[in-house]
Amino acid sequence: MVAGEVGDPTPGEQQVLVRTLACGICGSDLHAVEHLDRMIDMQRKTAPGQPALDPSRDLIMGHEFCVEIVDYGPGTARALPVGSRACSMPVVVDRGRLQAVGYSNDFPGGYGELMLLSELTLLAVPNGLPAEIAALTEPLAVGRHAVEKARIGSDDLPLVIGCGPIGLAVIVALKQKGLGPIVAADFSAARRALAERLGADEVIDPAVLSPYQRWQDLAWPPGAERDNPLTLLFGERPRPGVIFECVGVPGVIAQICDGAMRQTRVSVVGACMQPDRFEPLVAIGKEINLQFCFGYDPLEFADTLRALAEGEIDAGAMITGRVGIAGVPQAFRDLASPETHAKIICDPSLTA
Amino acid sequence: MVAGEVGDPTPGEQQVLVRTLACGICGSDLHAVEHLDRMIDMQRKTAPGQPALDPSRDLIMGHEFCVEIVDYGPGTARALPVGSRACSMPVVVDRGRLQAVGYSNDFPGGYGELMLLSELTLLAVPNGLPAEIAALTEPLAVGRHAVEKARIGSDDLPLVIGCGPIGLAVIVALKQKGLGPIVAADFSAARRALAERLGADEVIDPAVLSPYQRWQDLAWPPGAERDNPLTLLFGERPRPGVIFECVGVPGVIAQICDGAMRQTRVSVVGACMQPDRFEPLVAIGKEINLQFCFGYDPLEFADTLRALAEGEIDAGAMITGRVGIAGVPQAFRDLASPETHAKIICDPSLTA
Repeated sequence: MVAGEVGDPTPGEQQVLVRTLACGICGSDLHAVEHLDRMIDMQRKTAPGQPALDPSRDLIMGHEFCVEIVDYGPGTARALPVGSRACSMPVVVDRGRLQAVGYSNDFPGGYGELMLLSELTLLAVPNGLPAEIAALTEPLAVGRHAVEKARIGSDDLPLVIGCGPIGLAVIVALKQKGLGPIVAADFSAARRALAERLGADEVIDPAVLSPYQRWQDLAWPPGAERDNPLTLLFGERPRPGVIFECVGVPGVIAQICDGAMRQTRVSVVGACMQPDRFEPLVAIGKEINLQFCFGYDPLEFADTLRALAEGEIDAGAMITGRVGIAGVPQAFRDLASPETHAKIICDPSLTA
Repeated sequence: MVAGEVGDPTPGEQQVLVRTLACGICGSDLHAVEHLDRMIDMQRKTAPGQPALDPSRDLIMGHEFCVEIVDYGPGTARALPVGSRACSMPVVVDRGRLQAVGYSNDFPGGYGELMLLSELTLLAVPNGLPAEIAALTEPLAVGRHAVEKARIGSDDLPLVIGCGPIGLAVIVALKQKGLGPIVAADFSAARRALAERLGADEVIDPAVLSPYQRWQDLAWPPGAERDNPLTLLFGERPRPGVIFECVGVPGVIAQICDGAMRQTRVSVVGACMQPDRFEPLVAIGKEINLQFCFGYDPLEFADTLRALAEGEIDAGAMITGRVGIAGVPQAFRDLASPETHAKIICDPSLTA
């Protein structure tokens, strides 16, 4: 990984040239650097029509950005003034194909100075929202989407496993919807503190207490005979359980199945890059539902930016550091330690 | 496995002594004989309060039965006359605990002459429905439950992977609900023929054609540019997909994830007894939903018996053989070959 120079991009049909104001450094990028072959394999399997990454060519990552509009390409309506600030989902339409900004050899991402986006997906940043907060729209939309995909309602009791940026985004989305109490677990004290600050009602160190046990204790009415299947048929029932898998390493899904209650719905948001093992019989016996989640839809993204701008959600505490472009490689290394950082923002105007 | 003699059971409080008229031989029993340790482990993990099987003690299996009422125990209302025919979910309440009939050392199952059931769960067999057809209530209820858990609607396009008794039961339930076209796949020609007879609209031999490919071809409008993610955003969309996993061996879930469309919902009904491997990244990229299914609820069971008795569903073709108690061990061996049998009924009044 290097911080180097590339040529300035030129906006094509219906495209916009933009300057990065702030771009969050995402765990997926760390995963991608480590497991680029698997990420390319997944792209090939799930989106065969999308131009695949070529690992031998340059790649400028960065897909959580707030930008300033620099110039418009041909065929654009120019609804937002040059110089104004905008957010966008990290995609760009190029000659009828979708390109993933930050995971494309042809379209640089937000860890560079200039990018191309589609006019179609540009959203004005309202209310003078600071650029680094607007750049949180993307990861927060991932959390919002995971909560929506869980079909979660006010009776459900949520448990968040892992309080990295994605777990924190899930907590913010749960809080926004007034759901809870929110139980969240992480081995890192710093991340547990952040989880509390962002809305977790109870944080658990799994080295000290089983988060599943505590969550089940909250779900069941006191004194219920939990281990007797007749209780479920004729007696008291627990609150329905929803677990958010926000870790993304092999074995966590199996661990969640072991810790879940019957009928628990699991939103898998952590992106485990390796093949994983689990015991289908445990999932069957409990009738577990595994909802795998990816990204967000355009309305969820836009509404997350709105919620940030209107102060309906407050996630600035996620930001634990700021670097210039030259500082990105070190930031990647720093993010490996959960005690120091959650979200580091790349601001190309900074010199270090 | 032996066909031997045990003492007659005595009905306890709110229990009923019944005589087996017909009892289907279930694939779970074949699985259980082969993987008894894993089944006990699953019981321990998912229903810790239920009395666990002791593999060193006698066990009379059989949980798909139609019975004749012989005698009532204390505290019973005796709503159904002695001599009348009944079905029941294979459970019995004994001193406040639930016992699994057919998987309990203390409560014999339907591969014997006499059983104990709870009066609470007895359902009269209506309309002179033959006992062997009434005995299909249990496996058909499993299929019905899998369809209900899939939250399937009229726009969904179903694909049934595996046409053993559970796959056939899913097909019957889909047909009952008017859903389809139903695409079903099995390597066995005999099972494909049965699948067609029970309602599959198209059957596929996976050795000849990919069932996933054919199902996707049916789901997409002709000429749609399927591989372009922009098609999903702005163009034509496929019918939503629902896949029923009715095989239950390692690797099938991974294969289904590879073959599924984006947003496919998968009902896992096949009970894979071994640990399994899959690629989370593929499931994430497609946002697959895995709903693990087990059994049925009391209303689904009762309504399946009603539908059979009213001729709303016709599943008699599933029955491919009949044996007496002495013939059960040979039937277990015969069921290993999918070309010969689907469902063998044990009728204790038969002598071979």
